[in-house]
Amino acid sequence: MIQRQVKAAVLLIGDEILSGRTQDVNLQTIAKFLAPLGVQIAEARVVPDIPAEIVAAINALRLKYDYVLTTGGIGPTHDDKTADAVAAAFGVHIGVREDARAILEAHYKGASNLNEARLRMARIPDGAKLIDNPVSKAPGFQMDNVFVMAGVPSIMRGMLEDVGPRIEGGAIVRSVTIRGRSLREGDIAAGLADLEAKADGVVSFGSYPWYAPPDSFGVHLVARSADAEALGKAQNDLLALARSRGVEGEVVEG
Amino acid sequence: MIQRQVKAAVLLIGDEILSGRTQDVNLQTIAKFLAPLGVQIAEARVVPDIPAEIVAAINALRLKYDYVLTTGGIGPTHDDKTADAVAAAFGVHIGVREDARAILEAHYKGASNLNEARLRMARIPDGAKLIDNPVSKAPGFQMDNVFVMAGVPSIMRGMLEDVGPRIEGGAIVRSVTIRGRSLREGDIAAGLADLEAKADGVVSFGSYPWYAPPDSFGVHLVARSADAEALGKAQNDLLALARSRGVEGEVVEG
Repeated sequence: MIQRQVKAAVLLIGDEILSGRTQDVNLQTIAKFLAPLGVQIAEARVVPDIPAEIVAAINALRLKYDYVLTTGGIGPTHDDKTADAVAAAFGVHIGVREDARAILEAHYKGASNLNEARLRMARIPDGAKLIDNPVSKAPGFQMDNVFVMAGVPSIMRGMLEDVGPRIEGGAIVRSVTIRGRSLREGDIAAGLADLEAKADGVVSFGSYPWYAPPDSFGVHLVARSADAEALGKAQNDLLALARSRGVEGEVVEG
Repeated sequence: MIQRQVKAAVLLIGDEILSGRTQDVNLQTIAKFLAPLGVQIAEARVVPDIPAEIVAAINALRLKYDYVLTTGGIGPTHDDKTADAVAAAFGVHIGVREDARAILEAHYKGASNLNEARLRMARIPDGAKLIDNPVSKAPGFQMDNVFVMAGVPSIMRGMLEDVGPRIEGGAIVRSVTIRGRSLREGDIAAGLADLEAKADGVVSFGSYPWYAPPDSFGVHLVARSADAEALGKAQNDLLALARSRGVEGEVVEG
């Protein structure tokens, strides 16, 4: 039985990524977490802390893909605008929810430290299901097919553990990578295009040049497929392609 | 005179970023390169090597922002689809262009090594202006307000040098960052919201928690403004805000 491909989008929310202040690492973490569950990331976007932009992106992506995973903008400060934007995108009410408040109260040891700013983190859109935060407690939430997580990488990784079991994946796409030292893309391009054409969509091939100054270079040849047998054949085909150029390719991870 | 803000979008093209195989670093490089020229990145997208997706993203972004900068998909292999997608987005013809072919011929020392695959890198949409590639010669190109660059970071950085002089920037937004060790977001959120409200859009404030396990944590408080005087005042306000919580903030880079 051929399983269907399940596609997700990642939405990174925050001025700090667009300004270059922060190097995002969440996209890669999410992609690697979802792949073995049978979900491929088909698109990603980065938007600033502007409600209308967040709303527009959420609505565009949630209608187009099976899942949307967002990171960022759910903290206690004024520039955290994601929860309200998600509520607006779905056209539902948002307010402090008792289950979320209880989590924060327990964490902040009674209501004394739980000031108005922190209580913002208990604002959850109506109908959403909380996502556990094992690191700093303030929860994320799931609204329909949209998973709303923190931007701090360690917290985001913790939240993914609670997201995983809620995901219904499809075909698991695996990949093999052949490292060809001193191989040049232009010399294997025709052969690679032949492999792609013959694979008829069952395997997709990619070619990624690398440079290690001063004088080391080469190509990573990648094959991706949900069909294990076809992927095994593709690996051999890529090794043969490298060999046809006098290069003994090396099978590497990732 | 108040200069207008010039906004750009970044479009990262390639399956390898969405699969998590490759950690993108180009967005941050571009953001930091453009900021001193008076251009802010207002949005970024990552799309796969699928022509229709690339075309749709280019058309959405080029109409919305002053500039679009793309990376990836301009090599010699079958999965390099950006040049054709740009031509399709603008509705113009694309073919091998003599100026681009001449660059490749010189690099590959005559036509012998310049096979059909490499010649793909001389395919340039009609009306585009070449972008110099000081690293591996195969040029990028500028089509109207869209700058098409390579995905390999070292080549992309080289191409940016040729893009810079073609950019007409506006207001230069600068930022200051205060590092507050052991400061907690929830304790400064109200004060920070006050500063944001009083700044009336001239300064924007952001708050970014950091964690250094096992027990070091704090907040980076960031102010951004195109008004140097207002930014200086904001810096003092942020230091005072930290001090009000018993923390001597430290002015740091970035």
